[in-house]
Amino acid sequence: MDFRPKKTVLRLESSLNRVLAEDVIANTDLPRDDRSTVDGYAVDAAETEEASQAKPRILELTSQKTIGKGQAKQVWTGNTLPKGANAIVMLENTKIVGNKVEVWIQATAWENISKKGEEIHKGKVAVQGGRRLKPQHLGFIASFGIVEVEVFNKPKIAVLGTGNELAELGQSLHENQIFDSNRLVLSALCDELGAETVDLGLADDAIDEISEKLKLGLERADGIITSGGTSVGGPDLVPDAVNALGSPGVVVHGVAMRPGMPTGLAIVRGKPILMLPGNPAAALLGFEVFGRPLVSKLLGLNISEPRPILKAKMTRRITTTLGRKNLVRVRVAQSNGELLAEPISARGSGLISTVTRSNGYVVAPENSEGLEEGDLVLVHMFDDVEVI
Amino acid sequence: MDFRPKKTVLRLESSLNRVLAEDVIANTDLPRDDRSTVDGYAVDAAETEEASQAKPRILELTSQKTIGKGQAKQVWTGNTLPKGANAIVMLENTKIVGNKVEVWIQATAWENISKKGEEIHKGKVAVQGGRRLKPQHLGFIASFGIVEVEVFNKPKIAVLGTGNELAELGQSLHENQIFDSNRLVLSALCDELGAETVDLGLADDAIDEISEKLKLGLERADGIITSGGTSVGGPDLVPDAVNALGSPGVVVHGVAMRPGMPTGLAIVRGKPILMLPGNPAAALLGFEVFGRPLVSKLLGLNISEPRPILKAKMTRRITTTLGRKNLVRVRVAQSNGELLAEPISARGSGLISTVTRSNGYVVAPENSEGLEEGDLVLVHMFDDVEVI
Repeated sequence: MDFRPKKTVLRLESSLNRVLAEDVIANTDLPRDDRSTVDGYAVDAAETEEASQAKPRILELTSQKTIGKGQAKQVWTGNTLPKGANAIVMLENTKIVGNKVEVWIQATAWENISKKGEEIHKGKVAVQGGRRLKPQHLGFIASFGIVEVEVFNKPKIAVLGTGNELAELGQSLHENQIFDSNRLVLSALCDELGAETVDLGLADDAIDEISEKLKLGLERADGIITSGGTSVGGPDLVPDAVNALGSPGVVVHGVAMRPGMPTGLAIVRGKPILMLPGNPAAALLGFEVFGRPLVSKLLGLNISEPRPILKAKMTRRITTTLGRKNLVRVRVAQSNGELLAEPISARGSGLISTVTRSNGYVVAPENSEGLEEGDLVLVHMFDDVEVI
Repeated sequence: MDFRPKKTVLRLESSLNRVLAEDVIANTDLPRDDRSTVDGYAVDAAETEEASQAKPRILELTSQKTIGKGQAKQVWTGNTLPKGANAIVMLENTKIVGNKVEVWIQATAWENISKKGEEIHKGKVAVQGGRRLKPQHLGFIASFGIVEVEVFNKPKIAVLGTGNELAELGQSLHENQIFDSNRLVLSALCDELGAETVDLGLADDAIDEISEKLKLGLERADGIITSGGTSVGGPDLVPDAVNALGSPGVVVHGVAMRPGMPTGLAIVRGKPILMLPGNPAAALLGFEVFGRPLVSKLLGLNISEPRPILKAKMTRRITTTLGRKNLVRVRVAQSNGELLAEPISARGSGLISTVTRSNGYVVAPENSEGLEEGDLVLVHMFDDVEVI
């Protein structure tokens, strides 16, 4: 299934972090011609043979575009090489005497020259379509004088929270209620990746209400992310509501991962619906594992953008559940040049503070009962490393 | 000198990636009271002693807020623990028979319960001031029902390009001219970090013109970044223009780093001015080394946000200049689980494509003449790792 969004043309200065839709092709050689890489004098290298400060070679200065026999021309960094020259002698190896220049060293052919096309040849791909435009890519594209690029439209992701227990921020809490934080977190995660979000609000635990909101999401967005209502034990409200909307409906429901077991994926009307658990830490880590690749696809990215992975040493043992991938949250700190991973959570705790107190997670495999003190683990980083 | 910006109050949903100005304090215990972490039945653990599927313990269901002797109450995940209960038996270990519930296992006291204040106690710091608000922090703050946070204003950075050789994008090039890419790159780098930028345009190589533009920058922005006009060999146009504006003026000019030797820092009217070289790769790497910490300071960050650092193995030897830190651009790729660093540049090449073709840089120390094939090096990553 092709989820790639439509394309649009943007001015280069407005395209930071957007996903390039088409290859940018070099419209010229860069450099456009042979250029000086220093401030100095363009010479014919052969004419400086055996030159030294004691026995300088004296050349006549010219301001023509061509240097003749016995001539040199002053050039600044980036200047086009005059015809007849094949080397630049740096300023500090010369001395001006009247309208002549003393050259104090023997130049080597093509010294201090950037050759035509050395950076890139006309017609070659400068920046690949399907990659996110970072500052350096904008700079490279600008150096061709290109002012507009074709990028993918930002995909729209609709975000729905479900659960009778959820209250909107600013409301007063009834018994058993908590404030909804997942919609905000999931919207922010999509926003960070470069998607637009559509807030579908909160739905009570009622299939009809969930279904109505999902329909709205399918009309207004390119994909939907829900949280809550997918409990593997209890009633499967969101999966049932999704299946009522069309086929194929739910394609995956329940993954061998803690936290995040009740995660599911559905396709309705050609649009993906990611169903995350209501538990805040599970929703966030479920997004990390399943949401990021999904949104990347909708963005049109064809280069994966994994979180940075660091190798760190476990500071203490932690037990995990056999038979499931356990996402162990850890706080990685650099101490005396060594990276140490302090476990923050065990057994899939759902406290959101396990995420704010950690800066990455380790995937403890299904066939393990824990991670040992001293184990070297691979940490998927979602925040910065602390230096202690 | 205190460069910290002024504060402003923002709604939580608008504060992603902003820098929190004040600690957010927990306004309540979280959880607010003892809560069930599963769907099931709240019981007094002592009453389930020796219960099994063969010999279930039968309890009477109640819907009161307190359970009495011989009673149980149905609870959903997140529900407040009824008085008299001290454990939750999961649904799958029970069976409803009429208005009674069969309990099939012996519960342990405080099993499946998240205790009041387990996540955080009222009055504790939930999120520290001076850190950037990531999605998980927004979520944690939301769970207190907090709707507004105090963040630092975005600092304004003015960006100036200097050099007769520079043409604006879309213009036609005269001889010796190139398109200016540095202003775009430097603005994008500031933008990525969360600063606002003020475009001061291009100035010719003339002290008066540069000085006028810098004055404008000092009026309109909290700091200035310039590129070009700082050549250590030639005339020091930007440093001279800066010094003409006030004291202390230029405090550093020239660093033992390649590329980027002519980098300088000035303070005028209490505002920092970072003077970067005109060479595109040098400007970009100079920003990485000096600009990022400076802008972080202006953002009010008190937690450093270094680029991720990976340890990788050099795929081949590269020679560097003795006596200077050499920023060797490399392309890090993961191959069979090993991180390999392929050098893209040597001797401080200024081609911007050395940056777009690489994804990080290695600092080769002053006392080295190169990096050897097989050396384990620390790579500062500015783009994603390639998997091959």
